[in-house]
Amino acid sequence: MNLLILQESDAIEPGLYRLTDVRGEHIRSVLKLSVGDKLLVGLVGRGSGEGSVTRIDKGCVELTVEALIPVTEIRPVVDIICALPRPQTVKKLLFIAGMTGVRRLNFIRANRVEKSYFHSPLLTEERWTKHLLEGMSQGKMVRLPSVSIHSKFLPFLHDELPGMEQVESDKPVKLLAHPEAGKNLSSVAGQLDSRYIVAIGPEGGFVDFEVTEFEKSGFACFTLGRHLLRVEHALTGFLAQLELLQSDGNS
Amino acid sequence: MNLLILQESDAIEPGLYRLTDVRGEHIRSVLKLSVGDKLLVGLVGRGSGEGSVTRIDKGCVELTVEALIPVTEIRPVVDIICALPRPQTVKKLLFIAGMTGVRRLNFIRANRVEKSYFHSPLLTEERWTKHLLEGMSQGKMVRLPSVSIHSKFLPFLHDELPGMEQVESDKPVKLLAHPEAGKNLSSVAGQLDSRYIVAIGPEGGFVDFEVTEFEKSGFACFTLGRHLLRVEHALTGFLAQLELLQSDGNS
Repeated sequence: MNLLILQESDAIEPGLYRLTDVRGEHIRSVLKLSVGDKLLVGLVGRGSGEGSVTRIDKGCVELTVEALIPVTEIRPVVDIICALPRPQTVKKLLFIAGMTGVRRLNFIRANRVEKSYFHSPLLTEERWTKHLLEGMSQGKMVRLPSVSIHSKFLPFLHDELPGMEQVESDKPVKLLAHPEAGKNLSSVAGQLDSRYIVAIGPEGGFVDFEVTEFEKSGFACFTLGRHLLRVEHALTGFLAQLELLQSDGNS
Repeated sequence: MNLLILQESDAIEPGLYRLTDVRGEHIRSVLKLSVGDKLLVGLVGRGSGEGSVTRIDKGCVELTVEALIPVTEIRPVVDIICALPRPQTVKKLLFIAGMTGVRRLNFIRANRVEKSYFHSPLLTEERWTKHLLEGMSQGKMVRLPSVSIHSKFLPFLHDELPGMEQVESDKPVKLLAHPEAGKNLSSVAGQLDSRYIVAIGPEGGFVDFEVTEFEKSGFACFTLGRHLLRVEHALTGFLAQLELLQSDGNS
């Protein structure tokens, strides 16, 4: 827990937060704080600032928070489209998205996605938010990524995605991670202050028909390298490569 | 399972392999092969080639393997030094190492490593090999990474590491992933056909004394980016960045 994350739903009155879960336990048993001690906290969607412990009991810790530094936007903005993987992998992707400030995770249907995955009890806002918050706590992020589930491939690509794109003025760079692509991320990344929409396939990859449909919708294929990665490694690898390109661009 | 991995210990006579574990089950129930069918197999440390199914029973599958294409060396060679993490994370690192062809994983003691981790039952060759093989099967790799455990920090850095370095003629590039470093991988990677020895710290990082000792031993600090990553994401991120730089160098 690198950053203690608070939500508005933790507030019992304006500026006063009550924690009755693992976060309180962390303050009590790991950080061993006392009443009057201070620690850095993040308030989801708002910013980070100094929290002061005002009460510590077994099972209940209270904090006041003052002088928030407002959250700044992370550039480049990254939206992910991911063929819905098995629930264990979904948890890892949620954590990574929270940790790295991914703005949006769109889980979609694809030919090699098992239909039963769409019935996972993990796919409720309460459950997925828990894993996003854990990632945010690791990565010291205060932005909560949004998550959406799309159980049909073509309606998502043809109807829903263009709608998502239109709400913003800048045109996104659309990429598809594809092991057989001839180009790497440097070749397709474009302006590094861009907005990215990046698609990642299921185990075994998107089928040819799906790759073609992505390409028709303006996605450029690129490879992350020579290794055959699992979905969670593809997401981590893409984000790490983007960090490298961006820091090269800034230096 | 992208590649069925065989070990010499599976052979019941030269060229004939008997599988009585999940691999046999995979051939029977997932691939649904019959006697006479062929599939690509990898033979640890030797190469990959075509296997022919010669027997299928419940609980036992036999294969012959002919015409192996010898394993080629993966360049650049990557050796990892990693502060020993908790066992769940060790499993993930073993998988990633197997999947990506890391040559050697050295787990070491550091100030922020819990001593009890060195008593994990996972730290036996039989147990860690299982996870390496799973990664190799994912990444279609036939090289088994080597693993070693070092329970003292300075003796490893001062005595054991120089011994490991001297057995090879080329001088390795030695790097330390450090969130606070001012340089990125592009700035420190050197010749991309180099041999790399890359150190990754524990949760919370190496302490200042340890960073200084690494630097005295010739390690250059670099950052993987702005995100505060867990150990497994740092390893995946480093390997992905190296792939990007290498493909840029080759293009």
